Amino acid sequence: MKHNLQLDAQGRLNHFLSIEGLSRDLLLEILHTAQSFIGLSSRNIKKAPLLRGKVIANLFFEASTRTRTTFELAAKRLSADVLNLNINASATAKGETLLDTLRNLQAMHCDMFVVRHADSGTAHFFAQHAAAGVSIINAGDGRHAHPTQAMLDMYTILHNKGGFEGLKVAIVGDIAHSRVARSQIHALNILGVSEVRVIGPKTLMPAQVRTLGVHEYNQLTTGLRDVDVVIMLRLQKERMHSAMLPSEHEYFHLFGLSEEALSHASPDAIVMHPGPINRGIEMTSAVADGGQSVILQQVSNGIAVRMAIMSMAMQTTPRQEASHA
Amino acid sequence: MKHNLQLDAQGRLNHFLSIEGLSRDLLLEILHTAQSFIGLSSRNIKKAPLLRGKVIANLFFEASTRTRTTFELAAKRLSADVLNLNINASATAKGETLLDTLRNLQAMHCDMFVVRHADSGTAHFFAQHAAAGVSIINAGDGRHAHPTQAMLDMYTILHNKGGFEGLKVAIVGDIAHSRVARSQIHALNILGVSEVRVIGPKTLMPAQVRTLGVHEYNQLTTGLRDVDVVIMLRLQKERMHSAMLPSEHEYFHLFGLSEEALSHASPDAIVMHPGPINRGIEMTSAVADGGQSVILQQVSNGIAVRMAIMSMAMQTTPRQEASHA
Amino acid sequence: MKHNLQLDAQGRLNHFLSIEGLSRDLLLEILHTAQSFIGLSSRNIKKAPLLRGKVIANLFFEASTRTRTTFELAAKRLSADVLNLNINASATAKGETLLDTLRNLQAMHCDMFVVRHADSGTAHFFAQHAAAGVSIINAGDGRHAHPTQAMLDMYTILHNKGGFEGLKVAIVGDIAHSRVARSQIHALNILGVSEVRVIGPKTLMPAQVRTLGVHEYNQLTTGLRDVDVVIMLRLQKERMHSAMLPSEHEYFHLFGLSEEALSHASPDAIVMHPGPINRGIEMTSAVADGGQSVILQQVSNGIAVRMAIMSMAMQTTPRQEASHA
Repeated sequence: MKHNLQLDAQGRLNHFLSIEGLSRDLLLEILHTAQSFIGLSSRNIKKAPLLRGKVIANLFFEASTRTRTTFELAAKRLSADVLNLNINASATAKGETLLDTLRNLQAMHCDMFVVRHADSGTAHFFAQHAAAGVSIINAGDGRHAHPTQAMLDMYTILHNKGGFEGLKVAIVGDIAHSRVARSQIHALNILGVSEVRVIGPKTLMPAQVRTLGVHEYNQLTTGLRDVDVVIMLRLQKERMHSAMLPSEHEYFHLFGLSEEALSHASPDAIVMHPGPINRGIEMTSAVADGGQSVILQQVSNGIAVRMAIMSMAMQTTPRQEASHA
Repeated sequence: MKHNLQLDAQGRLNHFLSIEGLSRDLLLEILHTAQSFIGLSSRNIKKAPLLRGKVIANLFFEASTRTRTTFELAAKRLSADVLNLNINASATAKGETLLDTLRNLQAMHCDMFVVRHADSGTAHFFAQHAAAGVSIINAGDGRHAHPTQAMLDMYTILHNKGGFEGLKVAIVGDIAHSRVARSQIHALNILGVSEVRVIGPKTLMPAQVRTLGVHEYNQLTTGLRDVDVVIMLRLQKERMHSAMLPSEHEYFHLFGLSEEALSHASPDAIVMHPGPINRGIEMTSAVADGGQSVILQQVSNGIAVRMAIMSMAMQTTPRQEASHA
Repeated sequence: MKHNLQLDAQGRLNHFLSIEGLSRDLLLEILHTAQSFIGLSSRNIKKAPLLRGKVIANLFFEASTRTRTTFELAAKRLSADVLNLNINASATAKGETLLDTLRNLQAMHCDMFVVRHADSGTAHFFAQHAAAGVSIINAGDGRHAHPTQAMLDMYTILHNKGGFEGLKVAIVGDIAHSRVARSQIHALNILGVSEVRVIGPKTLMPAQVRTLGVHEYNQLTTGLRDVDVVIMLRLQKERMHSAMLPSEHEYFHLFGLSEEALSHASPDAIVMHPGPINRGIEMTSAVADGGQSVILQQVSNGIAVRMAIMSMAMQTTPRQEASHA
């Protein structure tokens, strides 16, 4: 990816496609902008007029109620109009190309596209062809990236740990097939944690994983030793049935997070998961609902972080509004 | 059900789960609040700002365009933002538990959940686990209850008859499997009608039906004699094919409402049906479209009654607004 | 169709069902009203409050993301509330009649119905039974009519050609099965172009096509000679497989629009298509994306034209607002 595809000539965010290529300052600006939206959600009237009159199209070529819902809520809190387009059931079934879909929705004066697709690179493709003034947000493309998920995870770490310096972070599970893990690893390294570990069976590790700037562990408790943050990935059950893993029971036995396993981490470690949890597979309910879990905080933070990214990409953040006043 | 699950410490409505356990005064308060919303729907601009900035999630685990639509319209008239979540196609397919669904949507700052589910008790389960300030509305759970339907029926009776005292009301059809009938029976008895009759074949009567406070009739015209209100239930065709009934033709012959059959009721009796009607099975078109039918009034009243219940549960009714002013 | 079904007693638009029966003045009024909405879409805040508080129900008995989306965007820009009802999955599955569907939604105080149905005459049927103050907009009925598509095409012609007089217009493709062609032919003749040509294989021509006021050509380049406007129809692939045509390849060879074929038209001819395009079948990508193509203009104009028709049918156009002030 080229640096300038996500940024405009002044270096401001235009599209949000992947964590790679973004500076530490820009990631911190997203986190700080999100902070200004956190208070809004608990107010009686949860609306900010920043995107009033803008049309945001949720272009989901892959079903995802949860992620789509958080984008829809974020957009509505910014007072935008939202179009939910489930594309399986629509134009592509009639043989319309991706590019025609983009051009047609642009002709209808849509201002922003939130794109999820099973193929890596789809959001980049849209950004390469988007008209001036239109923003593309990647809501997950193949195994490549899920950068808004990574940023809400970063926000949750920042909120609980006060900063990134000196932190040891472990990511546990199916690293090879996870776009979430890939985006988290980039964000953690850019933000300057002291160590990123990936933990999982060898069959679920990407080739040459060390080139990503991580330490690999194939044994859970060894990998968890003294970490400050434990990020459990969701296990795709489809993957399990394809013989990469012997059984759910055996997976939990080796890589599931129990209270015992968690005790190897730092005593004040936080436990994260992108949801939805497979209870009893990735972790016990005691851990998921326990005092170290910040899983529901992640969900709440997801709204504010997406509001930040959407308003920054449309260059209508509260700060800028203020500086214009 | 315990009394206090639906009410807050001051005895005000918090959740709306079933008619049982609610007082006559509270049911009348709902009906009076609905009255104040009736005028709004015929105004040029049909909006009240009572729930502005609130997020209402329609959580339909069972498909129902009609009921969902009335809740959506009611919510939009109260200026709320509405999320329509058809859950079959989403998170539960990924194995997320009901409780995780609730907790995640609460973490996204949803304020109210309108819940329909094929299992009795689902709305109660949500209410037991809801966070403070969150309201649960039961839009139909299994065979148990459909309390907003019962309240719009009560409104329609009150509007046409001027009160409940002295009324004889007959409910006709598949009593055994009807959550609508169960909620209507409770509401009619709490509001103090003089007699509730249930009419249907013995195979479609619940065990010990008399303990519900009704009189049972297995012959239509005998049961209709001198009643003031005739409520026809919808016949689920699936039921018919399962050999509980010989044929649609025979059902209509025995329990369908023709003009002749209706003539046994009081001359000014009204005819009700929760919709959609199976014309020629539950009643003739002459009756459905005739002068005694108030079926479309029920639909209109449904919007106002649901606005009343939603605004009372969020404790933002017009009256309270006024008293704060 | 009787003249007065679309118009009220004062001759103003009430329903919009088909181009037939409408006067040249009324068509021009739609085009001029649309002109006043064109600027709105490029403004920062794309909202006009003309239909605030109105409820518009998109009643799509046939799937169509593209057309439904343009109506939804048009309605939201007019500040209306929109209900999207995909009827396959809902009430009609339970056996509800069309008439009951209309009556129920009217009872819920819906103000306008945008109707698409595979059966010709459905929108007329709704209009015949609509309550006073309710408007019906035909979004495509069977092979009969698609009048809003025709009007956005007329707008695009007017915008590019400055008028209709003296124009030669060719419509190319499956004329027999096209509701779009039928509505275009009526509109072009009412607006007074000098010649309407239909071009296609004999198997895809309606019986007695000349009675529609067109010239028939069965050879592409002959038909295109000196025309000012080339309208390519979408080829339904289902049709092709039903043996009316030998193959996609052969169809393109005979009736597909290449740059060579287009060179037979007037040098400043514009190329139109209702979308989505089957690239390489109806036309080459060079033509679709070339300088004579106005296909994306059509999409943009579709929003403004639908805003015009919706606001005129609700009798709340900007002009009338002004005259009341």
